[in-house]
Formats: sequence, structure tokens, C-alpha cells
Amino acid sequence: MLYIIGLGLSDEFDITLRGLNAIKTCERVYLEAYTSILMVEKEKLEALYQKNVIVADREMVETQSDEILKDADKINVAFLVVGDPYGATTHTDLVIRAEELGIQVKAIHNASIMNAVGCTGLQLYNFGQTISMVFFTESWRPDSWYDRVKENSNLGLHTLCLLDIKVKEQSVENLVRGRLIYEPPRYMTTNQAIDQLLEIEQSRNEKAYTEDTLAVAVARVGSDSQKLASGTLKQLLTTDMGGPLHSLVLVGKRLHIMEAEVLRKFAVGLEEFNRVLVSEYNVK
Amino acid sequence: MLYIIGLGLSDEFDITLRGLNAIKTCERVYLEAYTSILMVEKEKLEALYQKNVIVADREMVETQSDEILKDADKINVAFLVVGDPYGATTHTDLVIRAEELGIQVKAIHNASIMNAVGCTGLQLYNFGQTISMVFFTESWRPDSWYDRVKENSNLGLHTLCLLDIKVKEQSVENLVRGRLIYEPPRYMTTNQAIDQLLEIEQSRNEKAYTEDTLAVAVARVGSDSQKLASGTLKQLLTTDMGGPLHSLVLVGKRLHIMEAEVLRKFAVGLEEFNRVLVSEYNVK
Repeated sequence: MLYIIGLGLSDEFDITLRGLNAIKTCERVYLEAYTSILMVEKEKLEALYQKNVIVADREMVETQSDEILKDADKINVAFLVVGDPYGATTHTDLVIRAEELGIQVKAIHNASIMNAVGCTGLQLYNFGQTISMVFFTESWRPDSWYDRVKENSNLGLHTLCLLDIKVKEQSVENLVRGRLIYEPPRYMTTNQAIDQLLEIEQSRNEKAYTEDTLAVAVARVGSDSQKLASGTLKQLLTTDMGGPLHSLVLVGKRLHIMEAEVLRKFAVGLEEFNRVLVSEYNVK
Repeated sequence: MLYIIGLGLSDEFDITLRGLNAIKTCERVYLEAYTSILMVEKEKLEALYQKNVIVADREMVETQSDEILKDADKINVAFLVVGDPYGATTHTDLVIRAEELGIQVKAIHNASIMNAVGCTGLQLYNFGQTISMVFFTESWRPDSWYDRVKENSNLGLHTLCLLDIKVKEQSVENLVRGRLIYEPPRYMTTNQAIDQLLEIEQSRNEKAYTEDTLAVAVARVGSDSQKLASGTLKQLLTTDMGGPLHSLVLVGKRLHIMEAEVLRKFAVGLEEFNRVLVSEYNVK
């Protein structure tokens, strides 16, 4: 059996009893560590599980799936993922490969940012499509997400923006020279995400949002250091949310007065917040 | 401190270690049992927690919130909810009342159907707004959700439909006579939901969907008896999904071929499924 086990959002204690019980039956335990990360060291997981934990980077999952799945028709193997197994990334390739090999696959659910973002006070019913924002490079500035945001915005819906992480990156030079030297991990901040959002709005100029659009920056959701900040994109562009992981919500025009009441509690500037509520959202 | 603790989707083992640890510090433990339910008896929770669990029905939460919150500025109180604390229902009134009383509130996240529905193979990125479907009565057949489905459908997006549950209902006669006699709990089946969907499509006739629209019926997600079935609304209208809880997904036209591949695995009738994929979804 291959267990794909969600670890939840924050630290080793966010696992479910069902997940922990499954791990205890597993002979090998892999931790997927490239689409999201927990805010604790691997050693803490190992101490809790009383098992060795193998960190699986993208390359390993993509090229050595048969090694991960070895003997999993006879023994149990755990593949741990941050959040829920069916979050943003679903590891479809690994699941398909397992099924080809006649290996049973079982998912054990957990919290995901796509649900936990309800902590902002915004109603999950009022969200449209979720988007992912990747780090722009000199030559690669993908903006297909802009159409999704615009679709949501036209309906007055909120948009959850999931922000890129880069783990075990190689510089182009090291890559070309085949040197296994990795850059430090990078986590997109809400500031960087807003900078990219505004750049694309400037070039597309279809008014999916403006500097005056309200947004909510969230950091380290579910942890003791969770931080929320609401304000205009212009305000949040320079609001420091601290350490990773960050996500961003663009607030749609269908904003309900009850939602606005909650956002007001963590507005970075109350006067500006109230001004925009009236001028942009018609909420008083 | 008021802890609002998500219990996850299925049974007592879906709680997180963080949630369980919090409960152990609480002097009173309430279980919210009217917007969703776990598939285990209260006694199993009590055995696991080694605590008495008080079932809180809607009336209690709405009229006796001060009793629930009593002394929670000095002691810890747990309010358990199925799924995630920020699922469909957010218990905003209880949280606002706690804050008025100067009581700290902390949410402990867990899996929710809004995320776990990824088990269908449909990408969460391709979902639009979630809707709730209530039981129609003779005189009350609300259809405001139809506009939401249509908005999603116009964009080609999937729609998650959460289905009503009725716990501790009184018949009109018992209500009028003030008799505290309650009807057996009712859980909307996917069959009933589809019946209501088709009725409203017939009256509105705006083609948000048709009998030939693909859908996925899901039952008991996250449990060992989880069941998935895909097919047209017409097919699923009579597909028995077994015991509660059920949810339904309407499949949008933006369906990706990879998503279709997964749906095909649990199609109730492969020939019809393949026919509709081509004729309605342009997927071959």
C-alpha cells in the first residue's frame, strides 16, 4: 500500500491520528519537500514517528518513482505531503505509476491553505478559482493566471493566490557545469507577489484589479505566529509579513459587510481601508 | 481560550495531534452537530479524549452561547466541528460573542470536503464557487444557487455542491404544539440533489447544465467505505451511493483530458460516459 498522507499546515503536530497510525505501519517514509514545506526540521518528524524520513525532492519523485514504490505491493510505504494530498499538487504521476504496478493507493486527508484561508473572515463560498504565482525570471514572466483573476473579478469573487517556493535550485552556471551546488531556498513573499501582479496589470491593463484593490496577506497560517494583514495592494506591497509561507487573497467586489467587518480588524491602515471600502466596494 | 477544533471528515482518528492536545487542556468540550456530522458515536470521541462531550445543537449554539463560553477567559473550552473550522459554516456569531467577552479564540485546522473533493481527480484549480443545496419543502424551493452554478458553468468550471443535513428537526405539528419530539436525522443523497437540480433547470431553463452534464457523486470521503461515481446527471439520478454523507460535483466544460481519465475509472456506464465526453465536452 502507498499511503499519501497530508501533514497539515504548520508543524509535526498537525498530522492526524489516522496519518500517524498509518506511518507506524510503513517500512519507508518519504517527505515531499518541493511544492510546499513544513516549518519544522525533518528530525522533529523522525522523533515523533520513530522512523527514518527520506526527503524526496522533485528529481527523485520524477525520476525514481519505482524506487519509492519498491515492494509497495507487499509492504506499506508513506509519502508525506504538506497540506492535503489533494492540494495544489496532486502527484498524479506517482499515483498512476503505483496503479500500473498494481499497488493500492490510499490518501489520508488534512488541512490545506485552500480551506484554511477561511481564517481571513472571507467566506469560502465567495471564492472563485485559485491561482498559482511563480517567480518571474528575466526571460519567463508567465501571466496566464491573469485571465483567471479577471474571471473571478468580473463575478466579484475573491481569488486565492498560492505563492511559489524554490527548493534545491541550481544556478544556471552550476546547472550547465553539472555542479550539484544548490541555492538557498526561496519563498515568495506577498510583497513580491503584489509586485508581479501590478506589473502584469500595467502591461495587460484590463483592470482585473488596481492598486486600490483590497487584498489580504496571510503568513504561517495555522501556526502560533500566524499573521494576517488587510489593505490595498499598494499598502500591502510594502507590508512585512515575516517568514514563510505566505499567501495572498484578492478581495472581490461581492464583498459582504460581515466579511469587511472581519478584515477591518487587521487592516494595515484603517483610514485608507475605510476609504476604499466605500469608493471601490460600495460597503459602508 | 476558546478552541475551535476541526475533526476532519470521517471518524475519531481524523483529529490532529494539535487538536487532541488542545482538548486535553479543556474543561468543557462541545461537539457541533447540526451543520455536519462525524460517522461515529459521541462515545467513541469521549473514549479517545477521556472527556465528557456535550452535543451542541443549533438552538444551543444560537441561544446559549454565553453558557458555552462561560469562564473561557480563565479556562479552556473546546468547540469541535466536523471538517475544518472554516468550512462551509464559520460559527461567526460564537466567535464574535467570544471576542466581545474578551475571550481569546484559536482555530485548529483539519481536512474539509472543499479540499478533499480533489479525490475525484478533478483539479481544485478548476473549481468555481461552492454551493449549498438545501432540502426543498412544499413551500420553500430556494434556487439562488442556480445563478452561481451558471456563473461557474459559463466559465467552464466545476461546481462543488454541499448537501443539506437535517438533525433534530421537529415536525410542524410538534413545533406548533411545543412537543420536543424530533424527526430522525435526514441527509440529502446525491439522487435527491440531482432531482432538485433538474427541477430548477427545467423551470429556469437557462442551460446552466442539462441531463447530459457530467457529474461526480462522492460518499463518505476519507472513510474506508468512500465511494465515487461519475456519469451524467441522468445516470447519477438513480445511482445508489449508500449511507451519508454525500456531495456532488458538476463537471465544467473546461475539463482536462487528464481529469477525464481519472473520472473514467469510476464511471457508472462507460459507453455513455465516453459518448458525453465527446458530444458535450469535446474530449476524446
